Amino acid sequence: MNFEAHFQAALDGLKERGNYRVFAELQRRRGDYPHATRYLPDGSTQDVTVWCSNDYLGMGQHPDVLTAMHEELDRSGAGSGGTRNISGTMHVHRLLESELADLHGKEAALLFNSGYMSNWAALSTLASKIPGCVVFSDALNHASMIEGIRHSRAKFHVFKHNDVEDLDRLLSQYGPDVPKLVAFESVYSMDGDIAPIKEICDVADKHGAMTYIDEVHAVGMYGPRGGGVAEREGLMGRLTVIEGTLAKAYGVVGGYIAGSKALCDFVRSFASGFIFSTALPPAIAAGALASVKHLKESPFERKRQQERVQKVRAALRATGIPQMENPSHIIPVMVGDAKKAKMISDWLMEHHGIYVQPINYPTVPVGTERLRITPGPVHSDDDIDRLVKALSDIWGQCALHRVEAAA
Amino acid sequence: MNFEAHFQAALDGLKERGNYRVFAELQRRRGDYPHATRYLPDGSTQDVTVWCSNDYLGMGQHPDVLTAMHEELDRSGAGSGGTRNISGTMHVHRLLESELADLHGKEAALLFNSGYMSNWAALSTLASKIPGCVVFSDALNHASMIEGIRHSRAKFHVFKHNDVEDLDRLLSQYGPDVPKLVAFESVYSMDGDIAPIKEICDVADKHGAMTYIDEVHAVGMYGPRGGGVAEREGLMGRLTVIEGTLAKAYGVVGGYIAGSKALCDFVRSFASGFIFSTALPPAIAAGALASVKHLKESPFERKRQQERVQKVRAALRATGIPQMENPSHIIPVMVGDAKKAKMISDWLMEHHGIYVQPINYPTVPVGTERLRITPGPVHSDDDIDRLVKALSDIWGQCALHRVEAAA
Ligand SMILES: Cc1ncc(COP(=O)(O)O)c(C=O)c1O
Ligand SMILES: Cc1ncc(COP(=O)(O)O)c(C=O)c1O
Repeated sequence: MNFEAHFQAALDGLKERGNYRVFAELQRRRGDYPHATRYLPDGSTQDVTVWCSNDYLGMGQHPDVLTAMHEELDRSGAGSGGTRNISGTMHVHRLLESELADLHGKEAALLFNSGYMSNWAALSTLASKIPGCVVFSDALNHASMIEGIRHSRAKFHVFKHNDVEDLDRLLSQYGPDVPKLVAFESVYSMDGDIAPIKEICDVADKHGAMTYIDEVHAVGMYGPRGGGVAEREGLMGRLTVIEGTLAKAYGVVGGYIAGSKALCDFVRSFASGFIFSTALPPAIAAGALASVKHLKESPFERKRQQERVQKVRAALRATGIPQMENPSHIIPVMVGDAKKAKMISDWLMEHHGIYVQPINYPTVPVGTERLRITPGPVHSDDDIDRLVKALSDIWGQCALHRVEAAA
Repeated sequence: MNFEAHFQAALDGLKERGNYRVFAELQRRRGDYPHATRYLPDGSTQDVTVWCSNDYLGMGQHPDVLTAMHEELDRSGAGSGGTRNISGTMHVHRLLESELADLHGKEAALLFNSGYMSNWAALSTLASKIPGCVVFSDALNHASMIEGIRHSRAKFHVFKHNDVEDLDRLLSQYGPDVPKLVAFESVYSMDGDIAPIKEICDVADKHGAMTYIDEVHAVGMYGPRGGGVAEREGLMGRLTVIEGTLAKAYGVVGGYIAGSKALCDFVRSFASGFIFSTALPPAIAAGALASVKHLKESPFERKRQQERVQKVRAALRATGIPQMENPSHIIPVMVGDAKKAKMISDWLMEHHGIYVQPINYPTVPVGTERLRITPGPVHSDDDIDRLVKALSDIWGQCALHRVEAAA
């Protein structure tokens, strides 16, 4: 067996299909974000404006966050030095867990090294350690949820995306004694649509099922304190588990679940991905804590984000560039072809210093390749004008499909 | 189904068996490590000396590391803002990956958010995406490796711990056309023993198998540049993949694999846990980079660690406290009972301000519960005297088994 040849052949296949990923290498510039320096393969650099970051609110640049991180570095040093059980639990981890529990109105919260790990570890533990548990998973759930459910080896059903009737039908196959877990997201990050949380909870309650919601693309951004869409809709109390990340709107890194004391303690005690991994550095926890606290009190970033999103949407509409309409902050500009999406993205970068990553398989289904634009409070009117003008240019040059321009 | 009752019953079971984990809540104090502040449940605090950290060399306190982190925070801000593919690749990630590739004499390296994730994602990807791959896994491999192999759903065999003959016998069952992957560690963290790397490579070569080594408890500490046990023994070139962490001897957080360009590109392109998770913050990568660079050049920390370990070992021997002998820096003091180990640990903390976490199931098998002592360059003679005296006291008071005192 020639392993190298196998790897190379697989990579060549990706290249042929236009799915080979070339990472843009950036240097974010504090205070100047969304403007950044891009490093090109030949060693030269270029000024770029980032339009595809998930540091949605620019909190990765917020003085409160940076000060908290500097101070905690000075106080504690760099790493935590151990797993949570073996010398790695820092005072600031506990403060952050309390803050997150409070954010979601839950008794407890549990930190992980990433949102990916929180989904994978929590779902695989719940589904495997509740005997006979059957999982009901939304068709568009994130990879980290799918892998967690798969890893549990529990029986599972995939319900049609956001389709409460399909969920009801699937749940009805099982009697009241069968433990059931319904897993879904609030804001789906690639289409930007939002789940019917209340209706899903109603159906879950009817069948006695637990509910697990991923609010990774909503925490910090929705609800009066940034508790997510469930907070905005007054539904946090109806969800068994609320999962979130500290790496997107909160601008740092890490993931968590919030739920009852017994549930969090259960996951803490049995989840391999929690037990057997070094805890987050205290400076990371301190930065995240400052970010969560700030966004609990300050509606400014959320309001300005929504306003910027509407401004970009309106400008795109006016030029006829096809966007997927949705009720969130995510603007998918549909292209439908991997190579074309990459070509547009390359052209924007090269000629306009505008960075919008093309999104292709496996992140979205083949044929739905897109540019995914994430306007935030940091984007100026001038940034927006340049983005829309550049897109309009390339749409014209490449004779891409336009929709009828609206006012 | 009453979920809360199920969780509570499982937790009560742990408590009855003495396996319920209570995390010690610490505040590390920069410049004063291994001395730290412990927060008690009643809100009071206590001064403690940490003897069970995996910040083995105290690099979490090293000025080079902290300066690099402060500077990168000032330069870039907090988070990376995206997955590696979607705006999250920072210049410093690439610098760190080059440094790690160089450390291990490999063409390339790939960063993950933790050592756990690097094992889980790399092993599950290699084993599942090489058609027909059969995995051979050491019986004492870490949970992250086991879960990665399980997740791949590839066929696998567990060979007896460090037993090359058993490995040979298992490999012999398969013809030369079957792709094979041998996964093992160098330093096993709970017993502190070291794998016969050369012999394992010989057998793997004989059968045309790939080799995957976890050097998590060795990188930074063994080899002239801290490349691990394989570097010390001149064997890095014979291993297909070398995996390590940035969270233990390097004192920060994160994990990685090093290997051929095609292999790293393959994992980069297909591993769900790499693709779908926000990249490490630039300040974290910068701190890890400074740490790796420092330990490449400086033998001081490694030498002093070895000297401290020998000093503790000799003192324990002189008082007859039973330690498991091994060729590494890890000193397991065997107790063999979960409740007793916890009692000793609690007593050390309460009466002596000495923190040594009891290690129990599932980290070690039931009946082999232990205290795991990790002396480092930061521990003074006085720290050592106090540790050994306290252990000797409690061994006397509780009439615990002693071994014959040696000189
Ligand atoms: C819906 C969803 N859940 C979880 C994650 C993982 O979170 P993290 O980036 O913190 O690992 C992501 C994206 O990265 C996501 O889009
Ligand atoms: C052998 C081994 N591999 C991997 C890991 C995981 O590394 P990390 O702590 O960086 O997640 C650990 C411990 O945590 C370990 O002991």
